[in-house]
Amino acid sequence: MKSDIDRLMAEHDLDAIFVVGAANHNPAMVYFTGLAHLTDAYVLKKQGEDPVVFHFPMERDEAARTGLETKSLNEYDFEELITEAQGDRVIAAGLRLKRIFNEFGVQGRVSVYGFGDIGEFFGLFSRVRDLLPKVEFVHESPIRSVLKLARMTKDDSEIDRIREMGKITVDVMSNVADFLTTHRAKDGVLVDRQDEVLTIGEVKRRINLWLAMKGAENPEGTIFAIGADAGVPHSVGLDHQPVELEKTIIFDLFPCEPQGGYFYDCTRTWCLGHASDEILQTYQDVFDVYHEVYASIEAGKPCASFQDLTCELFQARNHPTIKQNRQIEEGYVHTLAHGVGLDVHEAPWFRSEASNTDMLLPGSVITVEPGLYYPSRGLGVRLEDTVWVRPDGTLETLVEYPMDLVLEVPSV
Amino acid sequence: MKSDIDRLMAEHDLDAIFVVGAANHNPAMVYFTGLAHLTDAYVLKKQGEDPVVFHFPMERDEAARTGLETKSLNEYDFEELITEAQGDRVIAAGLRLKRIFNEFGVQGRVSVYGFGDIGEFFGLFSRVRDLLPKVEFVHESPIRSVLKLARMTKDDSEIDRIREMGKITVDVMSNVADFLTTHRAKDGVLVDRQDEVLTIGEVKRRINLWLAMKGAENPEGTIFAIGADAGVPHSVGLDHQPVELEKTIIFDLFPCEPQGGYFYDCTRTWCLGHASDEILQTYQDVFDVYHEVYASIEAGKPCASFQDLTCELFQARNHPTIKQNRQIEEGYVHTLAHGVGLDVHEAPWFRSEASNTDMLLPGSVITVEPGLYYPSRGLGVRLEDTVWVRPDGTLETLVEYPMDLVLEVPSV
Repeated sequence: MKSDIDRLMAEHDLDAIFVVGAANHNPAMVYFTGLAHLTDAYVLKKQGEDPVVFHFPMERDEAARTGLETKSLNEYDFEELITEAQGDRVIAAGLRLKRIFNEFGVQGRVSVYGFGDIGEFFGLFSRVRDLLPKVEFVHESPIRSVLKLARMTKDDSEIDRIREMGKITVDVMSNVADFLTTHRAKDGVLVDRQDEVLTIGEVKRRINLWLAMKGAENPEGTIFAIGADAGVPHSVGLDHQPVELEKTIIFDLFPCEPQGGYFYDCTRTWCLGHASDEILQTYQDVFDVYHEVYASIEAGKPCASFQDLTCELFQARNHPTIKQNRQIEEGYVHTLAHGVGLDVHEAPWFRSEASNTDMLLPGSVITVEPGLYYPSRGLGVRLEDTVWVRPDGTLETLVEYPMDLVLEVPSV
Repeated sequence: MKSDIDRLMAEHDLDAIFVVGAANHNPAMVYFTGLAHLTDAYVLKKQGEDPVVFHFPMERDEAARTGLETKSLNEYDFEELITEAQGDRVIAAGLRLKRIFNEFGVQGRVSVYGFGDIGEFFGLFSRVRDLLPKVEFVHESPIRSVLKLARMTKDDSEIDRIREMGKITVDVMSNVADFLTTHRAKDGVLVDRQDEVLTIGEVKRRINLWLAMKGAENPEGTIFAIGADAGVPHSVGLDHQPVELEKTIIFDLFPCEPQGGYFYDCTRTWCLGHASDEILQTYQDVFDVYHEVYASIEAGKPCASFQDLTCELFQARNHPTIKQNRQIEEGYVHTLAHGVGLDVHEAPWFRSEASNTDMLLPGSVITVEPGLYYPSRGLGVRLEDTVWVRPDGTLETLVEYPMDLVLEVPSV
């Protein structure tokens, strides 16, 4: 968590953290600034010192509201720097960086963070190296950088915010279940009172509406995938398609706080009207594995071990798994879990790979999401909750929601 | 526009374009793929050849829907590459890139694009250089790269999409005006029928709701800033504050297609109940300058010339401008305009700087947004429309909306 940053910087021999980009939809920046209308800013944090935010003058009030020490970029006259850089804006930005680093005594090992224009910043940091001979830009592991390690565990205020998003998420799930079951079954699809066919697009439009009403944003969209589409984990469902009966519907909802704050992640699998024996059996296998794995998860163990266990449990039920064949596209084809926070997918990671050394730490927020995928049979099942590994190491599903498979709908 | 890419690549001596990141909220990627649920992908486009999208296997159907040639990243076994890279994931990603580049015969000058994790990709592209001796990673100007130059002009399908967002934007503006004027004036603020004070937060909640209903997303939030806050161009307004009467309200709305497609950008300044002579005069000056500048804008001239003209027009009305003093915080303090497209702020740029060589080209979509800011007097005024420079060089405001200043509200 945030209070670990200085310790982690010391352990990783990092003298400074330098964050670039906007203060929205930018986890590293938002981690320091909170959500703010800063369209383009820097945060500089030296080891053992408080972070400073550098902002454009038009955004001075927004910068002040971050509660951080602020510095206007107006103090470094960019037009003058462009002249000095003979018209080259990248070099001018580099010269500005040089002035900032000199003024704040930044030298040694510096790591760069932020979500932004890759080409622009690759150019800037590549070319600025010559201007800053006393700075070494460190290339941290993208999955085990100091900030990602800090973000891997959450403090109470972060848990509260994730839980709030969870309440909104399951409220909207409930709204969707209600909405679907006010429809009727006709010719294999759902229709409304005027016999109009309900489409996936209309369901998604409502989802965005309900999320907005409750104060959430849905920047990455929703998975509402039916039948064969549900058999491919990241197929999202096509807007023009009707909501079909008696097929599995994977409904995966992962909204965040407006402008890109904390996420929640939850999946239910539904079947409208009636479920075949094949669907019931596949669902039961996922349901059982979910509960067996959940019961086995405890802090202090390697994350990959829970993926291994999940594969073993599915294999014991005669399902092929990714552990047997990494190229697999039927059976259990993905990993059990991922961290959830300012990114919907973040550390810790659960891949069963020798290179994955992530341990499950108290304070983590993770998904638990086993699934089975048989696109050739037109079905997929996934069950997912977002779970807090409490400081005492026990698990708590942040917000409960029923796991019923079949939603009853009347026939016309 | 898109059909210019190969010509621009030839002019800029670029052998290949390499785009990284997700296919949402990532302009360079979305420009090629359209909006798609690709959480992490590559697009490779060699000069004179069609682009290829590299995707994860779980997202194969989403990749296929882009209409581009597709290639599964499963074909490059990452676990094997990690072993080869002795556990270093960045080097493993570099080795994958090497295989892809070799397989597709990529060499020479390559430019990197995309919106993503700066630290991760700075590390990747810095370290992959040694693995790809025949590739030169080109550092293009961040504001005049091949893709940004291509995106600077829009084809008809892009204009249609921006105009659709414009219709939603002004519809919501209209909803907000209606909503405000159903309230009543009491003790200097708006109250509802139960005498409950209307807050900025409630107005913004409604805005997000109406945008979601109409099928738009609001990833960067809304500026709804009153009085002294309106005097600072990018102050967004505080949620807990009441909607005050007789002060200028800058309402700047800039939503986009869901998951990060095309934007629209529109600002109106309102005053509830009654406007003082000072507000009326300031508003009139902005209104007049808006129309004078608008009438002067034509294709083929330097963009900076329109900023110069705007400054002259404001100075003639005795307002200080950024042309007289770059550090100014009162008067006319920003630039007249910017391009609008997959980014809310994009080329062409209108800064009055020697280094700004952008010409206004037919096919551009730009804002026109003069404003006056006097935070010390508790007021700010801005008027902004999104305007298409048509192929014949004439201007067309994409969607009209009235410029009334005063919104009448009954008193309690």
